[in-house]
Amino acid sequence: MTVRLAIDCMGGDHGLPVTVPAALRFAQAHPDVHLVLVGREVEVRAAVSQAPGHAALADRLSVVNATEVVAMDDPVALALRAKRDSSMRVAIEQVRDGAADACISAGNTGALMAVSRFVLKMLEGIERPAIAAPLPNRAGGQTMVLDLGANVDCEATHLLQFAIMGSALVSALAASDQTVPSSQLNGGSNALESGAPRVGLLNIGEEVIKGNEVVKQAADLLRASGLNFIGNVEGNDIFAGVADVVVCDGFVGNVALKTSEGLAQMLSQIIREEFSRGWLSKLSAALALPVLSRIRTRVDHRRYNGASLVGLRGIVIKSHGSSDAFGFEQAIRRGYDAARNGLIRRITEALPKVSQQPPSS
Amino acid sequence: MTVRLAIDCMGGDHGLPVTVPAALRFAQAHPDVHLVLVGREVEVRAAVSQAPGHAALADRLSVVNATEVVAMDDPVALALRAKRDSSMRVAIEQVRDGAADACISAGNTGALMAVSRFVLKMLEGIERPAIAAPLPNRAGGQTMVLDLGANVDCEATHLLQFAIMGSALVSALAASDQTVPSSQLNGGSNALESGAPRVGLLNIGEEVIKGNEVVKQAADLLRASGLNFIGNVEGNDIFAGVADVVVCDGFVGNVALKTSEGLAQMLSQIIREEFSRGWLSKLSAALALPVLSRIRTRVDHRRYNGASLVGLRGIVIKSHGSSDAFGFEQAIRRGYDAARNGLIRRITEALPKVSQQPPSS
Repeated sequence: MTVRLAIDCMGGDHGLPVTVPAALRFAQAHPDVHLVLVGREVEVRAAVSQAPGHAALADRLSVVNATEVVAMDDPVALALRAKRDSSMRVAIEQVRDGAADACISAGNTGALMAVSRFVLKMLEGIERPAIAAPLPNRAGGQTMVLDLGANVDCEATHLLQFAIMGSALVSALAASDQTVPSSQLNGGSNALESGAPRVGLLNIGEEVIKGNEVVKQAADLLRASGLNFIGNVEGNDIFAGVADVVVCDGFVGNVALKTSEGLAQMLSQIIREEFSRGWLSKLSAALALPVLSRIRTRVDHRRYNGASLVGLRGIVIKSHGSSDAFGFEQAIRRGYDAARNGLIRRITEALPKVSQQPPSS
Repeated sequence: MTVRLAIDCMGGDHGLPVTVPAALRFAQAHPDVHLVLVGREVEVRAAVSQAPGHAALADRLSVVNATEVVAMDDPVALALRAKRDSSMRVAIEQVRDGAADACISAGNTGALMAVSRFVLKMLEGIERPAIAAPLPNRAGGQTMVLDLGANVDCEATHLLQFAIMGSALVSALAASDQTVPSSQLNGGSNALESGAPRVGLLNIGEEVIKGNEVVKQAADLLRASGLNFIGNVEGNDIFAGVADVVVCDGFVGNVALKTSEGLAQMLSQIIREEFSRGWLSKLSAALALPVLSRIRTRVDHRRYNGASLVGLRGIVIKSHGSSDAFGFEQAIRRGYDAARNGLIRRITEALPKVSQQPPSS
């Protein structure tokens, strides 16, 4: 089966110099991929012709012209109403029209969500779309967290729907794992090998008031849902590897994600500073170089690039705007895995199976 | 002026072997401190007699008997209603009765908050108490974050009150800085030297919906408040050092704090693993030991121990339950600084000055 990937070539801070080489490199490594490159045709073709090995990809690559570009700071309304021929929108339309199985964009999140929702529409049974992204965990795997910012005020049923979608997403990406040995998702000894993804509900713990009403209701729904619900988890559990999916509202999820990014930046700054404080420190840094580079590889945030916009009638992957080609390639990989392993089918099949009513007792 | 500190000697995972040596060491370094040690008198006196240098402290130390102990997993109701002669409660009563200027406890958070609120009552003009704790930032200072879990559902006026209290708390602790050179709070080139603490409101950024209604209303209140409000900040800004105080509801704050703890644990595990992978890595770890130990010192979470329970008619400091003597001493230091620099006076003086009404426009 061919997996057709629509690439918004103009999106992100860097656009063509990042998106096109990343897409071509991914296609070179995956013979079942057909690329649909969307953007200003002349510019896209020029970028293709500069990429190494492009000739061999000629018959697995098409270019779709789109005259406009959604800027990183464009208001949502502008992207949605004024720029109807943007590379972002045309790339999403490829998915709607069946010309692509997934769309990958590094364009601005608000616009991408709004345009995706407008073009693709929501899946039946899902009231709110969500942004889902994986974070690394201590078990050597990844924890999928959603929502990361699409919805600030959620009801319990929304959190249940996030759990269903997150669970389907992890299953879809894990299915790839069994065929792709290099994959990083939840290898080793975890629940995914033997069963459904473990779903945790993000709550606060020992403190005065244990969670709010919405979270309590969501826990009831999740217990009755038939999902592999492991109960409440706390912020630290995201990185502990006790759950494969952590569900929360978009405000909380966004704060957790950004806080983690901020802490990681601070710690790497501290490590850099201390290893360059005087010649002895610099010498020990040089000697520890292999160790430091292994550490850097393990915590490389680019490996976790690629958030899934779930709840839509099609697969849309959001890459970080400032991503380089390596990072963008990881986002493409998620779109590829989700498409190949039937993410949308998994979600729609799971929905009627899951009770969305709390137990009457 | 003598600063009298009531120590809940029985609280925390370790109790007497941690609390008593920490308290005595702190008193040895601070000649203006009088310790009020609260707990089972015989046991407390035995612990004192084992601590080095206790004889010299004899006239700056008193023991108040309390027959019961609040366990770390005691329900709040039990601590509040059944254990009326607990070391926690009696220590807080020392503050109420004017026998102490601050109380420091490593007991369970829920119980400490409930008993403090019951015994001390709220300050007039403050509707909800909050838990405030400092996190390190990249500017080499600290960012005070509140609420960390006392209130899950907050209204805009509560967030404004948190801002007032956080601002007063940072000012009080910074006032110590000018006399205590070893202090770690916001030294160097930040706004505190020249003016009021910079207050940020935790929000989400570029994503689809910019914050919820409560946060929008809180921003209006903060703009009109006369506080040094710098606007919305995101999760990563907690560690960036752009604000001295970051205000959020207790659910969000707790998730941010726990998420940070989880990430820090994961990263130190990764660093440990990689530096012990084979003899070459171990050798480079040995050579890099001075650097690694400087890094460890800079990120040592014990330095940030000591959350303030603010909004009460008295100073109560909560130490981490699993804290060792060094960590507990930091919590004592916060109680000392807050008492010496008039935290309660600062809050009550700031309250009428700050408008709690949004602009009518």
